[in-house]
Amino acid sequence: MFRSDNITGAHPKVIEAIVAANAGTAPAYASDELTKRVEKKVADLFECDCAVALVTTGSAANAIALSLLTPPYGGVLCHEHSHVYTDECGGPELFTGGAKLLPVGGAHAKLDPAELEKSIAVSSLRGVHNVKPSAISITNVSELGAVYRRDEVERIAELARAKAMNLFMDGARLANAAAAGNYSLADITWRAGVHAVSFGATKNGAIAAEAIVVFDKSRAEELAYRRKRAGQLWSKHRFLAAQFDAYVSDDLWLSNARNANRMARRLADGLANVPGVRLDHPVDANEVFATLPEKALTGLSGEGIGLMRRDGPGTQLVRLVTAFNTTEAEVDHLIARVRVHAGP
Amino acid sequence: MFRSDNITGAHPKVIEAIVAANAGTAPAYASDELTKRVEKKVADLFECDCAVALVTTGSAANAIALSLLTPPYGGVLCHEHSHVYTDECGGPELFTGGAKLLPVGGAHAKLDPAELEKSIAVSSLRGVHNVKPSAISITNVSELGAVYRRDEVERIAELARAKAMNLFMDGARLANAAAAGNYSLADITWRAGVHAVSFGATKNGAIAAEAIVVFDKSRAEELAYRRKRAGQLWSKHRFLAAQFDAYVSDDLWLSNARNANRMARRLADGLANVPGVRLDHPVDANEVFATLPEKALTGLSGEGIGLMRRDGPGTQLVRLVTAFNTTEAEVDHLIARVRVHAGP
Amino acid sequence: MFRSDNITGAHPKVIEAIVAANAGTAPAYASDELTKRVEKKVADLFECDCAVALVTTGSAANAIALSLLTPPYGGVLCHEHSHVYTDECGGPELFTGGAKLLPVGGAHAKLDPAELEKSIAVSSLRGVHNVKPSAISITNVSELGAVYRRDEVERIAELARAKAMNLFMDGARLANAAAAGNYSLADITWRAGVHAVSFGATKNGAIAAEAIVVFDKSRAEELAYRRKRAGQLWSKHRFLAAQFDAYVSDDLWLSNARNANRMARRLADGLANVPGVRLDHPVDANEVFATLPEKALTGLSGEGIGLMRRDGPGTQLVRLVTAFNTTEAEVDHLIARVRVHAGP
Amino acid sequence: MFRSDNITGAHPKVIEAIVAANAGTAPAYASDELTKRVEKKVADLFECDCAVALVTTGSAANAIALSLLTPPYGGVLCHEHSHVYTDECGGPELFTGGAKLLPVGGAHAKLDPAELEKSIAVSSLRGVHNVKPSAISITNVSELGAVYRRDEVERIAELARAKAMNLFMDGARLANAAAAGNYSLADITWRAGVHAVSFGATKNGAIAAEAIVVFDKSRAEELAYRRKRAGQLWSKHRFLAAQFDAYVSDDLWLSNARNANRMARRLADGLANVPGVRLDHPVDANEVFATLPEKALTGLSGEGIGLMRRDGPGTQLVRLVTAFNTTEAEVDHLIARVRVHAGP
Repeated sequence: MFRSDNITGAHPKVIEAIVAANAGTAPAYASDELTKRVEKKVADLFECDCAVALVTTGSAANAIALSLLTPPYGGVLCHEHSHVYTDECGGPELFTGGAKLLPVGGAHAKLDPAELEKSIAVSSLRGVHNVKPSAISITNVSELGAVYRRDEVERIAELARAKAMNLFMDGARLANAAAAGNYSLADITWRAGVHAVSFGATKNGAIAAEAIVVFDKSRAEELAYRRKRAGQLWSKHRFLAAQFDAYVSDDLWLSNARNANRMARRLADGLANVPGVRLDHPVDANEVFATLPEKALTGLSGEGIGLMRRDGPGTQLVRLVTAFNTTEAEVDHLIARVRVHAGP
Repeated sequence: MFRSDNITGAHPKVIEAIVAANAGTAPAYASDELTKRVEKKVADLFECDCAVALVTTGSAANAIALSLLTPPYGGVLCHEHSHVYTDECGGPELFTGGAKLLPVGGAHAKLDPAELEKSIAVSSLRGVHNVKPSAISITNVSELGAVYRRDEVERIAELARAKAMNLFMDGARLANAAAAGNYSLADITWRAGVHAVSFGATKNGAIAAEAIVVFDKSRAEELAYRRKRAGQLWSKHRFLAAQFDAYVSDDLWLSNARNANRMARRLADGLANVPGVRLDHPVDANEVFATLPEKALTGLSGEGIGLMRRDGPGTQLVRLVTAFNTTEAEVDHLIARVRVHAGP
Repeated sequence: MFRSDNITGAHPKVIEAIVAANAGTAPAYASDELTKRVEKKVADLFECDCAVALVTTGSAANAIALSLLTPPYGGVLCHEHSHVYTDECGGPELFTGGAKLLPVGGAHAKLDPAELEKSIAVSSLRGVHNVKPSAISITNVSELGAVYRRDEVERIAELARAKAMNLFMDGARLANAAAAGNYSLADITWRAGVHAVSFGATKNGAIAAEAIVVFDKSRAEELAYRRKRAGQLWSKHRFLAAQFDAYVSDDLWLSNARNANRMARRLADGLANVPGVRLDHPVDANEVFATLPEKALTGLSGEGIGLMRRDGPGTQLVRLVTAFNTTEAEVDHLIARVRVHAGP
Repeated sequence: MFRSDNITGAHPKVIEAIVAANAGTAPAYASDELTKRVEKKVADLFECDCAVALVTTGSAANAIALSLLTPPYGGVLCHEHSHVYTDECGGPELFTGGAKLLPVGGAHAKLDPAELEKSIAVSSLRGVHNVKPSAISITNVSELGAVYRRDEVERIAELARAKAMNLFMDGARLANAAAAGNYSLADITWRAGVHAVSFGATKNGAIAAEAIVVFDKSRAEELAYRRKRAGQLWSKHRFLAAQFDAYVSDDLWLSNARNANRMARRLADGLANVPGVRLDHPVDANEVFATLPEKALTGLSGEGIGLMRRDGPGTQLVRLVTAFNTTEAEVDHLIARVRVHAGP
């Protein structure tokens, strides 16, 4: 509990959709009617005529999307703590054919525009000796729980435009970001200057389903080839589509995200009142980063509550993630136990 | 119906397993108990201590497995009609880092040992100017419905051994091959000299689940890294494990395959008696390749039975695939309709 | 002697140019004046404003050029005996990021347009399951000594255009092809519909120098990045430029090629009159393919004349290549010795 | 002048060797006698039975060598200012098949062992989610002119060994490093724990020639395949071998390096005495890094002495490189001009 949002199961409506999709036969490899309908639904949700491809994991979604946005001799500027840089085992390098991810700093795992601009300049000082800065990747919600506001995205997009670069948004928790800022998905992505996004469902209630959304529809064929080549085209694709069907129907994605965000808020507020506990990053969405006393961590662990020490053994910064199905009782219980173990 | 075995849904037991797996929380990324148990079960089914990794698609399973068996400067000898050569959009080239698939002939999409030996010799005549022949890939059941007998696998394995090459078996329909020959999975794979296999579940009753099995256990770490990097490591891995749990329990994989094979036999026998219909390849497992009169194809299409013309528009060779849930009534109906439309 | 045109040294004028280029200092990495002048000269020779990049080997030139003409999920149709398919150790796969080379037949290692058209159709029957046919590669002079006439190139170019594919010409012996048909380099390349060419100098008098010529000048930046990334950008680039300077000055490329072609003609005519010797392919340029009696091969070998058995030990088809500096005396001597050893 | 050591021409002995190598015919593709002799000479110079392959550029040498030392899912720890990280346009990523270069800090572009150890730990905290730390790359002479002493190399090698990683040395200026420390090439490489090295000749007197030396001889075949596939196997290889023949004969490599180092010392000593000039890094070999007043830079530029501003326009840190043929007069002239322009 609280270690991540992917330790949860799936939302009941997703399970129901899977069960329902099992009836009868259906054409394979994404040529079935359900898939077409769902791809259209996702595009409608983004309020545009865009290219949509469903895949299994966020790593695949990110890496395939990036491969459309950078040539293999390109550089992708990203945060030094970003998932694409640190947690995908070189998947972006594999799928882009060897593009280089260039780490940039910034508070709360959000790219600092000034640092970004400087990094682009420095990393391209020597022309063909450097990789060509071709894309910028931002994660929304960031890896330290912060949300990019629309104007922040726009500022980075302007920079991208000025340098003729593409802008990618890793949206493993895009629903939470949209819910947090009360943004439409269109506003926080293409209307703010984003060229492609991965729109995550897995962490927010699906089993294993992510959408790659590329806003330039003319790239649809390339996207389809790249998905297939990556081994990401399900033969019984209806089962992938069904998950997304449930996810984007009746605003499930949004209500799920809202619950997660609300629970994180509650958790943060509770922890903030525990002496010895420090909140280290803004709690914009469904993640809480807090530094706990070692005795609290040890104590919690002793009663089976193993929190995730973000920076490895011996460190006290923990990441607490709430999910679509986290309850107030669970949150309050954790706060109470922290209070007990952190106490004098 | 009959276009492929991936137009079917999943077996009810697989769906039940998915539903059951949804309870509670579970550690992510394949570190949950169910996954460990299922990996062990798969290894036990192969009667050996081997490395097992579950992935989503057959293309991913094949490409990742091949990447363990050939260096990037290597050549992979495979049948000119093999799935890895013609139907995976260059996935093997991507995941191996650029290894070259070298097409070889042979009846019924099975490698002819003599042609294979000659191809290896010819393709390595010029040393470093050629890619280094490093692996052989065979598909069992073959892409034209034929099953490699154990002695046939052994003969190719001997060749591989003599040339210090690895032997891979694309087992998208391995269950059907084992059922056909009444072989244990161990007998038809590692005991016959195979180094790695993809063991398919999707076509035979799962939603989206394939196992990569590498018989040299010391390669387990590499396999794990390669799966992650390929974007194939599910975060909610229990849902992938659950499918396989159902699949390998109570011999579901085997009974499913047996039904499919029996139905193919029945279909073949029925069609053989229709004047004007010619069976073109052995019906060893769950695929029937038949040449039908054009008027039959047109007539069937007219009543909504669109068969798959294997070689494109205007050709009469059709591929008919039976599945775990194909019924005698469905088979008999098809035979009857073919008879009507093929008649004078 | 006669085993290949790359067993020769360099033309004296090339050596002189190297020696002359050694004076003083010069900006590194292709930014020196000589390089700019030579790139312009090469473009002028092709009578167009095109992108030119010099590299060290024909394999690098071909692979880098192809990487501009196909996406990584693309297919490159080429002759089954083409150098890019059989003799570059997977270099094209490496530099294109995994594109697939699809072998096509045709007499004398020239693509047969009808077979080519069929191959494109068959290899793209299944949409994203296949690689996307993206480029066609032809070698002029072909690997069996035949020259594509301009109208033959145009016919293939039309096919490429109709399928929205790119056309590449491997011109390791382009000078010989141009000399053979009395074509200008422009006529046999871009005017006939070729998009990029490797223009070889090494075999025809240089030390190690090949030019990649891409006729769409807007690709110049990409070409520059790809050359650098490939480890093909010389720091002391003037020494590469100097070779090409000599090569394209005073029609050295053409007079060298003419000598080689004339000597091949003389050799072919002489061998044709030797009983027991069969010429197997047209002698269009500077290569002669002949089948000799085993006793002749053995006899020649005994006196130190080891001819290259094209298809490996025990085969009698030999490849004889003449060069820019082959003399009549050398040719006549070989003919005489063949006559002696082939005799009764 | 002084912008780099690759703006020089080649040493006369190298030119002479090229001219001499032009006599007669020779087997192609590194199978000639001269090549074999030279490979042996290089191995002897390193006092071991190792695998040697000659290539054209330092970028190719580094990238190919690294591809033998890391799997594609591996991480290569290197200095954030290292050539492999910043100046090879992603070549290492291309040739390794997508391995990730992980930047580490340290004074004077030398890896700080403590930072290195920490980086390895942090970058592998999350198992398969991270790339696997597989190799360490150090540059000797470093990119800021510092030389790793033997004990410093040993310390890093110990770390590598403890983590089961490989150690690579980018030796574009290895001759200068050896000369500086009075080390034998063996002492500063394999005896100190290095697994592979690129041994540069281009900057130190050759035209375009670098040796990849892999100390585990059993990797020779792989090295040969990787060189060919990279488009780095010269057909007229004798001209590459000839350069190295001159380079390693009569200690030319060493006397050249000694001159360059001596001139750098002289330059540094001279500049140190110019008011307003600051030496920023140790002058261990043949590079001087100095900060000059802007007026000095402008003044020098005005008289045609354009120094290389290392960090781009508007910055005052310049890199001054001396070469095998730099003279005392040239050095003294530069010092004098700097003094004039830096003056009040």
